[in-house]
Amino acid sequence: MPSNALLVTLGGIGDGPLPVADNEQYAADATKNYHGVPLAVMRPRTTSELVEIVRSCAAAEVSIVPRGGNSGLVGGAVPVDDEQSVVVSLEKMRTVRDIDLVSNTVTVEAGYLLVELQELASNNNRLFPLRHAGLSSQVGGNLSTNAGGTNVIRYGMARNLVLGLEVVLANGAVWNGLNRLPKDNTGYDLKQLFLGAEGTLGIITAAKLRLFPAPKLQRTAWIGVASCAAAVDLLSRCRTELDEFLSTFELMNRNAVERYLNGRRAPLAGSHEWHILVVVTATSDRIPLEETLLDVLAQANADGVVEDAVIAADDQQERTLWEIREGIPAALIEDPTCIKGDTGVAVGAVAEFVTVTDAGVRALLPDAEIVTFGHVGDGNIHYNVVRPDSMEPQEFAGYGSDIMRVIETTALDLGGTISAEHGLGQKKMRRFADVVAAEELDLMRLIKGALDPLGIMNPDKLVDMRVPQANAVPIQE
Amino acid sequence: MPSNALLVTLGGIGDGPLPVADNEQYAADATKNYHGVPLAVMRPRTTSELVEIVRSCAAAEVSIVPRGGNSGLVGGAVPVDDEQSVVVSLEKMRTVRDIDLVSNTVTVEAGYLLVELQELASNNNRLFPLRHAGLSSQVGGNLSTNAGGTNVIRYGMARNLVLGLEVVLANGAVWNGLNRLPKDNTGYDLKQLFLGAEGTLGIITAAKLRLFPAPKLQRTAWIGVASCAAAVDLLSRCRTELDEFLSTFELMNRNAVERYLNGRRAPLAGSHEWHILVVVTATSDRIPLEETLLDVLAQANADGVVEDAVIAADDQQERTLWEIREGIPAALIEDPTCIKGDTGVAVGAVAEFVTVTDAGVRALLPDAEIVTFGHVGDGNIHYNVVRPDSMEPQEFAGYGSDIMRVIETTALDLGGTISAEHGLGQKKMRRFADVVAAEELDLMRLIKGALDPLGIMNPDKLVDMRVPQANAVPIQE
Repeated sequence: MPSNALLVTLGGIGDGPLPVADNEQYAADATKNYHGVPLAVMRPRTTSELVEIVRSCAAAEVSIVPRGGNSGLVGGAVPVDDEQSVVVSLEKMRTVRDIDLVSNTVTVEAGYLLVELQELASNNNRLFPLRHAGLSSQVGGNLSTNAGGTNVIRYGMARNLVLGLEVVLANGAVWNGLNRLPKDNTGYDLKQLFLGAEGTLGIITAAKLRLFPAPKLQRTAWIGVASCAAAVDLLSRCRTELDEFLSTFELMNRNAVERYLNGRRAPLAGSHEWHILVVVTATSDRIPLEETLLDVLAQANADGVVEDAVIAADDQQERTLWEIREGIPAALIEDPTCIKGDTGVAVGAVAEFVTVTDAGVRALLPDAEIVTFGHVGDGNIHYNVVRPDSMEPQEFAGYGSDIMRVIETTALDLGGTISAEHGLGQKKMRRFADVVAAEELDLMRLIKGALDPLGIMNPDKLVDMRVPQANAVPIQE
Repeated sequence: MPSNALLVTLGGIGDGPLPVADNEQYAADATKNYHGVPLAVMRPRTTSELVEIVRSCAAAEVSIVPRGGNSGLVGGAVPVDDEQSVVVSLEKMRTVRDIDLVSNTVTVEAGYLLVELQELASNNNRLFPLRHAGLSSQVGGNLSTNAGGTNVIRYGMARNLVLGLEVVLANGAVWNGLNRLPKDNTGYDLKQLFLGAEGTLGIITAAKLRLFPAPKLQRTAWIGVASCAAAVDLLSRCRTELDEFLSTFELMNRNAVERYLNGRRAPLAGSHEWHILVVVTATSDRIPLEETLLDVLAQANADGVVEDAVIAADDQQERTLWEIREGIPAALIEDPTCIKGDTGVAVGAVAEFVTVTDAGVRALLPDAEIVTFGHVGDGNIHYNVVRPDSMEPQEFAGYGSDIMRVIETTALDLGGTISAEHGLGQKKMRRFADVVAAEELDLMRLIKGALDPLGIMNPDKLVDMRVPQANAVPIQE
């Protein structure tokens, strides 16, 4: 039986596999919605150990599931079947290989934690701007999933923060594309293939990342508005008046804020249908940052766009505002019955998306608890439906797929996407294959087939290789 | 003979081929260094006309050379052989398909001129920040070559300005990836394959691009420094003190400025080894932009980093400073004997790159006229060597390859690139294949082979499919 032979081989690589009894710890992710017991769990300490592992799995034609910090929401790092895949955890590859404060770059290995990287940058008077709810996440996982979060409006997704990558390919060859520059026009931009590919084309082992100057000034505001349209209006005003300072523009509906205050005092005295968290930062401390922000808010208030607003007076108040915002996804993850949306539409269509989706969801479930929050600056609204306290979990579960269909269909009808930042993983792979154009699925399959001909790299994630579309136009005729 | 049959077929598509007599106009590019007479020149007006052209060429296995505004410097849009390729000029696909001022996006066809797009944005109180010397360039060409220029330090290369693409693939299928959002994590980021691919994987027919708010304030400074190291020092100061305003940081050596003043008055009274053009812009007009810039310059002057500096007092002075900067590449393009470098290194290595290259070039040609200018913020220095007035063109030409080798080898030894922004085209395809790691060339060939199995899309550009490396590790074992 090849898998036994493989286990023997793996036993000779590095620390060898984890004791079988520990495999269960790697069978699920943070969502608890996916479960697959690994055939073995390997934790390479170096790129060359990973090469040996990949070559061995390729020889045995056993699939590999790379795993980072386990904070994904779509089952991307969980095997789809029991005891069929080797889980490769990057947790032991944690070296900071280089930091260059003149060129503003840092090179770290895949298992380095995002929070460690944020701290390393900060200790060097720099900023690594990627910030999201996945506090356990590792750099490799953030890049493999092209993580987003609350600073995308200014700094872009994880993809935009990468200069170079080191990747172990499906045949065990190592592509060393680390040594890249902000400008390098020699051939195809190969790193883009692996960023956001969820480990289906290769395993990212290290990355050269961009650093930014640490801001010297920062102001954080909490704003109440009456409608989603008013929020988009305020966003446009912020773009026009202080675009280069705008780091965060987060939207939350009343439910999101009121349900998860957890005893904290509400930032605003009155009651508002929608709440906005705005952060502006400046590199120079000569900038009248607070005055500029106040001007925009005052004018928006005078124009009836903003109902009320407060600017955090100190770090403690600032932390409290963030605790409210970040408490929302944290609470939703703890609720396994919650229906979690991750759709995106053009900023100009956000208000319509919310109105149409609300109507569709209420038609299905009149007393649905709708919890909406997200990154309106990117058109990425997390539309969630929480079980009404009055309803039994089992009954609520029966509405799940219909409600999710309403959320996704509304986004698609508005030219949007069914996954703005969480990715496809196993959660949305088939749904995406159903809604994507045939030519696009063909291109994805073509690339997957070319880089991973044996299909061993995180199979049944992201790209559905199984069901050819009836209307597919083959790329090669 | 298939090519005759093909010409008959092409005759039935759209306006048909250009009169044969006009083919010569499409046989060269702006550099005049490359020449290849097209078998036929097609100018499709629509994507579907281009589809017909590509399908016909694929059926006849005749290669296709896409052509934009003809401002490239590496022969990417010129056939490599006479009468073997159909040149497809995108010049008639010029429609603005959509502009969305809430989402800040614009969708244009490939033949639309960059200068038209800059003006369209400006007329809508927006900025499309791509700016470079190729004034005839078209949007499609800018994206296919991932154009850079003088605003990269703030806005990134052309790649960073793209949300979505429409591409005609090698088999004539159309991938419609136009409708994309700032955040969309559904599968591989396919557009990245075609950006910077020089038409070797498909032909970009339209693009959805990002727009930015038009700056309300702008200041332009001309600065004299004694060394390249001082320029990098000043750059770090600007990053730390006014990073979010820094749009342009261009470096020029004394030769570059003095040779090409063309009678204009020098911006600074004294004589300086190196000159810097800095542009800072702000969205808000409340920002003390000039004061902040002056502070940085005054401090740098007090610290002995800056020798002298002047800030343009009005638009006319600003235009003059830009005329000096942009006159340099313009003059070099007119000089066919000039040896033009486009290397890049990490910002921290720029000073060493210049010192080492100067020594190497002078060792070959003591009275070489070295003209150095470029985008130091991106580590991209255009190192050019101009024929001494005393030397005959033929004699100077004899030094060409040795001098270019010194420039490129120095960059490579410092971990740099042989093409930071101009691309590979036919000029550097083989050189790149010689210096790149085997695994990287294999990956490029694998992708080229998968997307263009017949090898008809702009062959013998960018990726060298002919010479397999001795030490190549095949991706599929």
